[in-house]
Amino acid sequence: MLIRVGTMNESIEIKENERVDQLYSQNVKIIQSPEVFSFSLDAVLLADFAQFKSTAKIKIMDLCAGNGAIGLFASQKTKGQIDQIELQEKLADMGKRSILLNGLENQVHMHQLDLANTFTKFSKDSFDYVLCNPPYFKNEVSSKKNPNPYLAIARHEIKTSLSQVLQVASGLLKMNGKLYLVHRPDRFLDILNTLKENRLMPKRIRLIYPKRHQEANMVLIEAIKDGRPDGIRFLDPLYTYEGTEYSSEVKGLLYGNR
Amino acid sequence: MLIRVGTMNESIEIKENERVDQLYSQNVKIIQSPEVFSFSLDAVLLADFAQFKSTAKIKIMDLCAGNGAIGLFASQKTKGQIDQIELQEKLADMGKRSILLNGLENQVHMHQLDLANTFTKFSKDSFDYVLCNPPYFKNEVSSKKNPNPYLAIARHEIKTSLSQVLQVASGLLKMNGKLYLVHRPDRFLDILNTLKENRLMPKRIRLIYPKRHQEANMVLIEAIKDGRPDGIRFLDPLYTYEGTEYSSEVKGLLYGNR
Repeated sequence: MLIRVGTMNESIEIKENERVDQLYSQNVKIIQSPEVFSFSLDAVLLADFAQFKSTAKIKIMDLCAGNGAIGLFASQKTKGQIDQIELQEKLADMGKRSILLNGLENQVHMHQLDLANTFTKFSKDSFDYVLCNPPYFKNEVSSKKNPNPYLAIARHEIKTSLSQVLQVASGLLKMNGKLYLVHRPDRFLDILNTLKENRLMPKRIRLIYPKRHQEANMVLIEAIKDGRPDGIRFLDPLYTYEGTEYSSEVKGLLYGNR
Repeated sequence: MLIRVGTMNESIEIKENERVDQLYSQNVKIIQSPEVFSFSLDAVLLADFAQFKSTAKIKIMDLCAGNGAIGLFASQKTKGQIDQIELQEKLADMGKRSILLNGLENQVHMHQLDLANTFTKFSKDSFDYVLCNPPYFKNEVSSKKNPNPYLAIARHEIKTSLSQVLQVASGLLKMNGKLYLVHRPDRFLDILNTLKENRLMPKRIRLIYPKRHQEANMVLIEAIKDGRPDGIRFLDPLYTYEGTEYSSEVKGLLYGNR
């Protein structure tokens, strides 16, 4: 399938098993494939949690970008330049076509790159913000992984690790630059230790709960490079569901009816 | 004023400016004095958060015990032995009289003692649980303190510090013993670091929020001595207020109408 976009009659190919999704709340189309990668609520929540200056001068990096959803959502909150790094060729390719599909090629740039080679392409201390929705699960021999290698790599620390992700994030950030991370709360101590090892000081935390009277299943973290060690803040909790429906906050993020 | 209690016609003196309060939810009377020390919601929440075995064999320590409210509440949840350490003579004295007032002298024992001298009286590695509602605020030259020295010492780290409190707590606990701590979330990183320095591994966290859509203003922490480092859990948030009234959960804790 070919979709015609833009003023120059460019055509964007939508490949087999791919589809184009759109968040009703955002004017952004995203090429996805359930067999390779689809963005999840985590991406929507991270983009919402991040606070950017609106000026075109700022530089944002989206690490472990997947099909690029977070960077595309972020483009709606700022005029800043957004780079994205994704290891997997198929995912990076979807991201590149989504950028064209939205006519964002002057603002968002997808790079197929191993995190280990980040600094062959990007300068240290050059970004104002880093966004990251990394693989959540440790690559333990005992852990059950998805037999689909695309999904396994996106979910498990097979090709990267929390340690590498935060080392790269810290390296990219200017002093006082901000990292926005989404992760699992059961890794929280590990995350705090690894942030500290990489000069990243957590400042704002938001916990996500599936619903009232349940334990948190996701955590959003803002950390500042070389920030001062005191004064962490826990923002109001976010509930994904109220009863069997999405909560009004999540509905607002997904459907824009806030 | 003299209150007659017990079967042996003992009399408990209630001194000037003191009063006897009772939580409706608990069958415990507590001698308080607004000029010296009154327990707060923090104490109720900590006692509720703590989970004890019910057997008389267990040993519980209540550090920075103030007028002893937390240990008295804890006595309603277990048959275990409860020791309490409080530095300030007047507060320890109120606690001793509250113990008599409730006929709990075979279960609860208040010791007027400087934390620095804890191990002159108690053995290391001998407690199953430690409860602590320590002074929350750093003793900084710039910080505003209550001109009332009783209240200043209870609230600011004038006579003790987080570091000393957690060192004593860890020293008292057996391996796999549990610490229950209530503190302020803005000290959270400091708390986690100090727990770690003292072989205490946080396991369960509950954040307290004044009401919906506000930031947390209190945190309850369960930590295990020599516990394994992974798998921290964030329990469901507790809201103090719903609108202008106490939330139903807090009402239940205060008035017992759960």
